[in-house]
Amino acid sequence: MGDLKLVRKFAVEDGFFGRYEKLVKDVVLPYQERALNDQIEGAEKSHCIENFRMAAQKLKSGRCEGTFYGMVFQDSDVAKWLEGAAYSLAQNPDAALEARCDKIIDLIGEAQQEDGYLNTYFTVKDPDRRWSNLQEAHELYCAGHMIEAAVAYAECTGKSRFLEIMCGMADHIYRRFVEEGAEGYPGHPEIELALMRLYRSTSVERYKELAMHFINVRGVDSDYYCKEKEKRNWIVWGSDPEDKEYTQSHAPVREQKKATGHAVRAVYLYTGMADAAMETGDEELSKACKTLWDDITQHRMYVTGGIGSAYEGEAFTKDDHLPNDTAYAETCAAIGLIFFSNKMLYLERNGKYADVMERALYNGVLAGMQLDGTKFFYVNPLEVLPGISGEAKTHKHALPVRPKWFACACCPPNVARLLASVAEYAWHVVSDTLFSNLFIAGTLDLTDSLGGKVSLKTSYPYDNKMEYHFEPQEGAMSMTLAIRIPAWSEETKISVNGEAADCEIREGYAYLSGDFGTDDVVTVELDLSVRRVYTSNRVSANTGRAAVQRGPLIYCAEGVDNENDILSLSLKKDGEVTVSEYLPKKLCGIQELYAQGYRETVNEALYSFEAPKAEPCQITLVPYYTWGNRGLNQMRVWIPEKNKI
Amino acid sequence: MGDLKLVRKFAVEDGFFGRYEKLVKDVVLPYQERALNDQIEGAEKSHCIENFRMAAQKLKSGRCEGTFYGMVFQDSDVAKWLEGAAYSLAQNPDAALEARCDKIIDLIGEAQQEDGYLNTYFTVKDPDRRWSNLQEAHELYCAGHMIEAAVAYAECTGKSRFLEIMCGMADHIYRRFVEEGAEGYPGHPEIELALMRLYRSTSVERYKELAMHFINVRGVDSDYYCKEKEKRNWIVWGSDPEDKEYTQSHAPVREQKKATGHAVRAVYLYTGMADAAMETGDEELSKACKTLWDDITQHRMYVTGGIGSAYEGEAFTKDDHLPNDTAYAETCAAIGLIFFSNKMLYLERNGKYADVMERALYNGVLAGMQLDGTKFFYVNPLEVLPGISGEAKTHKHALPVRPKWFACACCPPNVARLLASVAEYAWHVVSDTLFSNLFIAGTLDLTDSLGGKVSLKTSYPYDNKMEYHFEPQEGAMSMTLAIRIPAWSEETKISVNGEAADCEIREGYAYLSGDFGTDDVVTVELDLSVRRVYTSNRVSANTGRAAVQRGPLIYCAEGVDNENDILSLSLKKDGEVTVSEYLPKKLCGIQELYAQGYRETVNEALYSFEAPKAEPCQITLVPYYTWGNRGLNQMRVWIPEKNKI
Repeated sequence: MGDLKLVRKFAVEDGFFGRYEKLVKDVVLPYQERALNDQIEGAEKSHCIENFRMAAQKLKSGRCEGTFYGMVFQDSDVAKWLEGAAYSLAQNPDAALEARCDKIIDLIGEAQQEDGYLNTYFTVKDPDRRWSNLQEAHELYCAGHMIEAAVAYAECTGKSRFLEIMCGMADHIYRRFVEEGAEGYPGHPEIELALMRLYRSTSVERYKELAMHFINVRGVDSDYYCKEKEKRNWIVWGSDPEDKEYTQSHAPVREQKKATGHAVRAVYLYTGMADAAMETGDEELSKACKTLWDDITQHRMYVTGGIGSAYEGEAFTKDDHLPNDTAYAETCAAIGLIFFSNKMLYLERNGKYADVMERALYNGVLAGMQLDGTKFFYVNPLEVLPGISGEAKTHKHALPVRPKWFACACCPPNVARLLASVAEYAWHVVSDTLFSNLFIAGTLDLTDSLGGKVSLKTSYPYDNKMEYHFEPQEGAMSMTLAIRIPAWSEETKISVNGEAADCEIREGYAYLSGDFGTDDVVTVELDLSVRRVYTSNRVSANTGRAAVQRGPLIYCAEGVDNENDILSLSLKKDGEVTVSEYLPKKLCGIQELYAQGYRETVNEALYSFEAPKAEPCQITLVPYYTWGNRGLNQMRVWIPEKNKI
Repeated sequence: MGDLKLVRKFAVEDGFFGRYEKLVKDVVLPYQERALNDQIEGAEKSHCIENFRMAAQKLKSGRCEGTFYGMVFQDSDVAKWLEGAAYSLAQNPDAALEARCDKIIDLIGEAQQEDGYLNTYFTVKDPDRRWSNLQEAHELYCAGHMIEAAVAYAECTGKSRFLEIMCGMADHIYRRFVEEGAEGYPGHPEIELALMRLYRSTSVERYKELAMHFINVRGVDSDYYCKEKEKRNWIVWGSDPEDKEYTQSHAPVREQKKATGHAVRAVYLYTGMADAAMETGDEELSKACKTLWDDITQHRMYVTGGIGSAYEGEAFTKDDHLPNDTAYAETCAAIGLIFFSNKMLYLERNGKYADVMERALYNGVLAGMQLDGTKFFYVNPLEVLPGISGEAKTHKHALPVRPKWFACACCPPNVARLLASVAEYAWHVVSDTLFSNLFIAGTLDLTDSLGGKVSLKTSYPYDNKMEYHFEPQEGAMSMTLAIRIPAWSEETKISVNGEAADCEIREGYAYLSGDFGTDDVVTVELDLSVRRVYTSNRVSANTGRAAVQRGPLIYCAEGVDNENDILSLSLKKDGEVTVSEYLPKKLCGIQELYAQGYRETVNEALYSFEAPKAEPCQITLVPYYTWGNRGLNQMRVWIPEKNKI
């Protein structure tokens, strides 16, 4: 896999993701930059940049003015922003933005201690306690995000300063945990996947070794956090070290069979594991990743790609427990599932992994952001009931409308960095094969690898047709184009220059090999028929119910389109569902669905012996990612289905 | 209402409640007596009696050995046990038990301070803090339970010692809160209803005045608990005084419209309010009670009579939020709903109040106890899924099997005292009218009021026929017999000596007036047809589902009767449901139901586009109160309903 090339040179064009790219550049990143600099009136203070300034001052003069402010992992906010900015710069050069980034990077460099150590919380506030609370203090987590940002910044701008800084920190960690044999492993995984990126970008073996170290020691001494807690005399939150499943430390990772604990931590860990398995060929690790991925996607994932059913600990619960209204389904966790699935796809080229990436991206992740890019959900329920959602003690987390950005800065920059780097997931280049996993319109510069450019023209997901065009530097591009055939597309037509293509279909991909020139067009027509989705009867919440899907989009009913009462609605079994024309003005451009259904009268009495009367009706459905953009409102994904009335 | 007579002289006979009465006498009370005395190996220590001994010793000698142990409200366990024992003694004289009770009562007397104050926590452990933490320390709650026990003991045994002790404590409270004008009201209501009982038993006006005081001041200064917390420098649990709805102190009680907060506290408060409203004719208070009762029963009550949807705070949540699998529905709260409804029935003679009492008694309360009387549920969910229930972080409270009695002693003795005094709810005597609210077989001695005995012969709820017989002391009993006609009984036949009765039906009661002699028999035949129950579509959890009811019994499907997979079952709409013969050996004697339904194949895939295939099947249903008596097992009350397959 040494020839794996990451996709950085991709110009997203108009269309579905073009709008998001613009939002990230024009709205999300600038807003967040001001937030990090505490320039937004009325917003929670970030103090991120100020923390770095204080650390730099302290290192220079032995003391600093003011006090550290924010979460113990506050540094990671700067990191995620820099990473998002890097991706954006790769696509949209912006000298002023780059200069500001460089300035922050210089500051980061000044905040680094002589031994390479870099963390403002411990440098400014608690120098004697560094490395003493791996379970809670998230030093390795912050280092991981800083490393990811440094790699991205180097890859996107060609500048190495940030990378050098973070190599210094990685070396520091290597010395401590490998050379000096310090015990322990991160309470919040992230460093593993970051070190794999660092290794891939620098080819320095010890970074891979260090990643493998943290993967290998995890859960081997499953009492580590208990012992650590006994030794230290301070806490961050007072997390229980005995809850070992919560920290994915209940068993060595190769023996873990169920996705447990904090969902984001889990999928970040599994991402690192899958990347390491790919890079090292470690079969046992690879098998563990497959087992965990199957457990998630067959037992612990919402139809939206959301994961982590419980607010309590933002965590996985048990197999087949997928409540709709109390779902946590954190935006970051859906993003992490994309990371994990993306690595699995490298490990095993099977369309099922890309199917899950697409499911999470178009539903669980996009729903996390208001259509105008200014508000965010951390929690993404599949059913919302005003008066209960966000209000009942059991539903405080499940807000019915997106709050104003910026109380805690975890999901928003994660959405930004994902959307700004969506090409990495959409396209894989492995040897002479270009894998088209997700269908994002734009032009891919493969001059360095396949000798030309490939562009995809499509209005997907609101059009079923996709055209691949080629711009060889000279002559033709001799390559294999491997196009994912989504599992939901029952009949897919692939043609080359208007003729049915002679291609091999294998594990969810259509492989077309040939010499592709300027005049060649590969056309794919997916089957965007509306489909009903049924959940296994193992899942209690959805028995007797169906969801509606078209292409990658899960649809939902909102009160505003349905007489403000969606609880009285049921879908007609085998009833027709018609698709509206494209409505460019509605919800930033969607196609609605109109399903044949029934509307019941509402019994005023809480309980009665009379079955409610039902009348045929039409149910209007909108894409899940657009819900909650029209005020306080009921919403439901899983709708009871009836044969007749 | 001064002529209201409480029903104490009732001999429960064989039949449904006869079995329970025997259980309480032979199993529940003896077991609990041993528990209170710390004589059960392996059980949680109670230390209750020991706490009283220590308090007595300290008062006698100025010091005591050992330390107080248990909850701050540990005294209430002794109280509830004594109350249950009193009721049992009234029906089953037992000189040895009575002597042991007297001994405990003597000890209680010795633990009382000179000023009447009685509470072992504060006497033994924290004498300087008494009355400083009304929100959490539950002194008034304990006093309330002790008063209830004292009243019951006096009424059932004719002995006044305990009553004198508790009048001393009530007088102490009166001096403090009325005469001296101390601020505040109880964090856990109970004293109000207890004082009303004390007033009714003693006719001492100041006890009614004191009850009214606590009712009247509650929520008027809604910041009281905040101020109290600022003044004191200690906590019990650290409860938040700002959560005013939780403590029913957000508004004066007459202005409260929604049942909020801790469910048991709420219904205990409302019970006291309703009793006071009845006794004083306070129209405004009466109206508030009706509003609150309607809110509970029309928006916040499970079909089993369980109330309090959330584990968090054992609390009410919001209107129409009734999740099945995460329900709290504490056994004590269902008992409290019976208390409240019983008082409402005195306030307004309407069968709906008795309907709710019956619903809660036969379902939400009885389910709280294992059929053999040795294990108890605090939490009574309406759906149980092994692997999730009791295991997922969100379901730790919703245990799938009853735990071994005695970790915390709140529900078990409450069940015992309710079952031992069930006649008080079954029968009301008001002037010359005998109200038959619940149908408990047995003989009622009304010699003092109506000049004879009335007995009810029935195998209800497994038989539809009830016979009322009369044993006048001489001649005939000139009276009105008012028999409740349950709302679920579509056709009810009432006859006197075989002839259709000429009776007035009014607000759910049939009134038969006449002179009833030894040869007279009033026969009631209820309609025990199986009924489907539907929830208002305002309740999300039950849309598309039905429950099955026969008589007062809500039925449920358990895995053990249904191939260990009840999630694949649906009821056939308008399908037949047949009733088994009485099965004396199954679950201590039940009638099963066999419903026409469908069984779907289980899709292995979590999500699929294929609707599951269904085949007709027979669904076996058992009464909800019997669930969980056959090991770890699925259970579901609300089952999807289908028109056809």
